[in-house]
Amino acid sequence: MLTIVVDAMGGDHAPACVIEGVVQALQESGNRFEIVLIGQSEKVEPLLAACDTSALNLRFLHAPEVVTMEDIPATAVKTKQNSSLVKGLQLCKAKEADAFVSAGNTGAQMAASLFVLGRIPGVLRPTIYAYFPRLGEGLTNIVDVGANVDCKPENLVQFAEMLTIYQRYGAGIENPLVGLLNIGEEEGKGTETLKQAYWLLKEADQAGKITFLGNIEGNDILKGKATIVVCDGLVGNTILKFGESIPEFLSTLFKRSLEKLVLSGQMDCEIATLTTGLFKGMFEPFDVEKFGGVPFLGVDGISIVGHGRSSSRAIKNMIYMAEHMIERRVNEHIAEVLSEK
Amino acid sequence: MLTIVVDAMGGDHAPACVIEGVVQALQESGNRFEIVLIGQSEKVEPLLAACDTSALNLRFLHAPEVVTMEDIPATAVKTKQNSSLVKGLQLCKAKEADAFVSAGNTGAQMAASLFVLGRIPGVLRPTIYAYFPRLGEGLTNIVDVGANVDCKPENLVQFAEMLTIYQRYGAGIENPLVGLLNIGEEEGKGTETLKQAYWLLKEADQAGKITFLGNIEGNDILKGKATIVVCDGLVGNTILKFGESIPEFLSTLFKRSLEKLVLSGQMDCEIATLTTGLFKGMFEPFDVEKFGGVPFLGVDGISIVGHGRSSSRAIKNMIYMAEHMIERRVNEHIAEVLSEK
Repeated sequence: MLTIVVDAMGGDHAPACVIEGVVQALQESGNRFEIVLIGQSEKVEPLLAACDTSALNLRFLHAPEVVTMEDIPATAVKTKQNSSLVKGLQLCKAKEADAFVSAGNTGAQMAASLFVLGRIPGVLRPTIYAYFPRLGEGLTNIVDVGANVDCKPENLVQFAEMLTIYQRYGAGIENPLVGLLNIGEEEGKGTETLKQAYWLLKEADQAGKITFLGNIEGNDILKGKATIVVCDGLVGNTILKFGESIPEFLSTLFKRSLEKLVLSGQMDCEIATLTTGLFKGMFEPFDVEKFGGVPFLGVDGISIVGHGRSSSRAIKNMIYMAEHMIERRVNEHIAEVLSEK
Repeated sequence: MLTIVVDAMGGDHAPACVIEGVVQALQESGNRFEIVLIGQSEKVEPLLAACDTSALNLRFLHAPEVVTMEDIPATAVKTKQNSSLVKGLQLCKAKEADAFVSAGNTGAQMAASLFVLGRIPGVLRPTIYAYFPRLGEGLTNIVDVGANVDCKPENLVQFAEMLTIYQRYGAGIENPLVGLLNIGEEEGKGTETLKQAYWLLKEADQAGKITFLGNIEGNDILKGKATIVVCDGLVGNTILKFGESIPEFLSTLFKRSLEKLVLSGQMDCEIATLTTGLFKGMFEPFDVEKFGGVPFLGVDGISIVGHGRSSSRAIKNMIYMAEHMIERRVNEHIAEVLSEK
């Protein structure tokens, strides 16, 4: 049975929301795995006592320190050795647990994962990706989204290779399609890094490691032209945050227009409610909580990173993501492909 | 009276759409300026003959060659000296005209503008910006959006300075606010280029040339936190194209949801039409044709670049933009500020 460590202190709504997510995962899955909840006993235990967890495959472990959103990643790892973050990852390193899940400080989790778990042999730099909405079936992942702001061409190629393995084995996509995000489709476009990455991606394609579509542009992302969009962390992080801001932006515009129609008597309240439902439904493809979080790819272990504002549903799905990564042996496949070089 | 050269051959719907735009501008403005329409006589003259232009302040000039969207910018400038693009810009250089307007090949127009008109003294690299929707009053411009994929810190600072001058004198914004697009708000974030740019922008702020807000993130763009968002051309181009793809993407999602409601009888056709109007109205802030196009900033002359798919309304507004740039003496202000260094 798998053992998954969940950081009770990670996330804007921790620990209450984390506990809810853990309980949901165990109930829904019929105690399919064991959960070790780690955090400050004074904050977590009263909440645990308030709900009946006796039938759940759940253990609690005290960690006196907390890494906050304000902590500087590299410093936090060194100075907060007794935090839920560092202690949780150490359990994985010691093989007492199989995966670690947190919705806390992403930078600190990356630093700690790298420091405690190390890299998979052959991996130059671990990375994190994000999910994007798309028309049609399948998935769109953008990589890197902030772990690596400055990338060398060979880093971009490894991101493409790791995501291809993740999508193929972890997400069941038969033929992941890689696009290099650039300012134009023609080869020879973009920075020196992108020009070189283009040729290295072609080589990786010819070696059968990836399927490379060539350069794609910003307007190809939502169309779902590629399942894997490769870029450096500066571009990826900007697009990710920009994308996340769209629903709220449009929602404000929508409310303004709707109010005008209702106040001028052109639309009654019942229809306005129906229309609001329609509007909200439109953003269903923007719901990335169904994936919960993402694994920190390239690290020698399973460390799942979630959004700070994760709901209990997101926490639950992050636990499933951890299980998934282990069962599909994604890291073993990465080690195999990247050691071939 | 100002003389504005308009490229009859530029744009997806040229020359018909360009002619319409020119006629609208002259009629609407009461022949406030003189327009020189330049292009292939065999294509343009029959269309001109079909509409009565006798009362308009309009001249036609034949240019036998055409720079197409497929032409490589640097090559086109050299090999197509008799194109409407090169000949039109030469008229400006020879002071026979005051501005040039085109919705053709942007890269070629940039290359030709730089080659024929040269740079304003002190300008390291000319740039182009784009308009973005925002909540609230004012403008959001992103700079650079593709003219400079690789930027040095001093280039980014000049973009901020030139846009500040444009917004202050050309767009009537009293206090333009500059944000540096980065992966986090804290100073010290991002690439080496961004870290250095941050300090140079602080210096420019202290020297009274700009108002610098500090680093901003992708989710701050639509909020309208800054009126000027500074980034390199790779990031700016990607965000621009991504942004342009949003209305179509959401429109598809909207139609799907609406169809379900209508087919299931939850919404009647009349309300569906009203709701569709509401949806379309929501995208009003995305309408950038009201600006027509953008000046190629830093070039020693007025060269207005439009989107390939420009409508006649966009062409008309590009002509007004040219007039505006001249009357507000934007280039003179740029020369003054940038020569201070």
